[in-house]
Amino acid sequence: MSSSYGRYHSESESYAPSAPEQPPHSNYHHTSSSNYHYANVNSSTSSFPAGTPQEVIRSFQMVDRDGSGFIDERELQQALSSGFHHFSLRTIRLLIFLFRNPHQPLSIGPKEFAALWSCLGHWRGIFERYDKDRSGKIDPLELRDALYGIGYAVPGSVLQLLLSKYGDGSGRRVELGFDSFVECGMIIKGLTDKFKEKDTRYTGSATLSYETFMTMVLPFLVSYD
Amino acid sequence: MSSSYGRYHSESESYAPSAPEQPPHSNYHHTSSSNYHYANVNSSTSSFPAGTPQEVIRSFQMVDRDGSGFIDERELQQALSSGFHHFSLRTIRLLIFLFRNPHQPLSIGPKEFAALWSCLGHWRGIFERYDKDRSGKIDPLELRDALYGIGYAVPGSVLQLLLSKYGDGSGRRVELGFDSFVECGMIIKGLTDKFKEKDTRYTGSATLSYETFMTMVLPFLVSYD
Repeated sequence: MSSSYGRYHSESESYAPSAPEQPPHSNYHHTSSSNYHYANVNSSTSSFPAGTPQEVIRSFQMVDRDGSGFIDERELQQALSSGFHHFSLRTIRLLIFLFRNPHQPLSIGPKEFAALWSCLGHWRGIFERYDKDRSGKIDPLELRDALYGIGYAVPGSVLQLLLSKYGDGSGRRVELGFDSFVECGMIIKGLTDKFKEKDTRYTGSATLSYETFMTMVLPFLVSYD
Repeated sequence: MSSSYGRYHSESESYAPSAPEQPPHSNYHHTSSSNYHYANVNSSTSSFPAGTPQEVIRSFQMVDRDGSGFIDERELQQALSSGFHHFSLRTIRLLIFLFRNPHQPLSIGPKEFAALWSCLGHWRGIFERYDKDRSGKIDPLELRDALYGIGYAVPGSVLQLLLSKYGDGSGRRVELGFDSFVECGMIIKGLTDKFKEKDTRYTGSATLSYETFMTMVLPFLVSYD
């Protein structure tokens, strides 16, 4: 069965994309009091999970100037600029779409921010593994391996479609920066997670009604352009 | 069976979206000689179907300045501006993606242009039917009926997702111009046609492998942004 099953995820990583990696154990005792502080300010909102690094909390609080406990796309873009990369608004919107709390569709709270940050940290490690010359870009041939590294076994035909997005039409090979890699990876993650929800027996196939198909796919087309 | 089958297409129209409506019968005898002229200039490319109105041929030729027999996205945008509407580049790219000849992925030839023009003419008629006050916009509540008019029975949940794209987040109702209506309609058309290819027995459901699902959906995410 395993030979016919189009595995979604690589075995080399036990990373389950819908359950982002736990942040590294933190020795910052301030974290607990920050959590309580946030919980007091906005008791109805999420708070940072125990062990969230101070760096993550600071990045969030720095852009959440009105102290509302939520940050919007511009604020998220700023917050990630310091820790990771200046992402395009398109990538930011995709991140919000995939990490948001369904009850707070347009913004990100502490819990969602911590999960997003952790995921990006993991992906950056993979990206850097392939950016051997530290140019800040990876070769398209390495994209497949890098996606495998973050947990996705992407078929060649699917990879071709992804790469066509980043070409300039001249046939010249285009290298991918971290923003593009994150965008690629998040598109793959999002669609694959949706498909998996319908393939509960992990057969590699799913039977979808027309309505289910459309409601799975449309948010990717309309939510983040 | 018909009660459980999620029909894709309304019965009120026999319009089969993958076979655009024939252009109205033309009395312009010049048409034939124009076809032959085009066929002589570029014998390897498509030519205008017999009966293509002069207006359509003229619109194409006016922007195909190098006489190559193909027009790109900017030229298509110009050509449609005169006959229909100034469409956004996003809508233009979606039109090219859906109407192009698979062997000429980035541009539109005479045959494709004639089909596209005909489809837009049909859709404009439907749009105008609902734009009773001639404001150039339709009410979101009418979008469902208008989509039904162009041949698609869109489930309410899917409609909600579509409409979320055009809101400004304030909850205030946004009306849709012809550009937005075409964009909506083309997204619905494109995804529905793809799904139908896999539901050959018209059951309203399709069994898709992971790879098939991804290759069906990704072009909508990467080809036309």
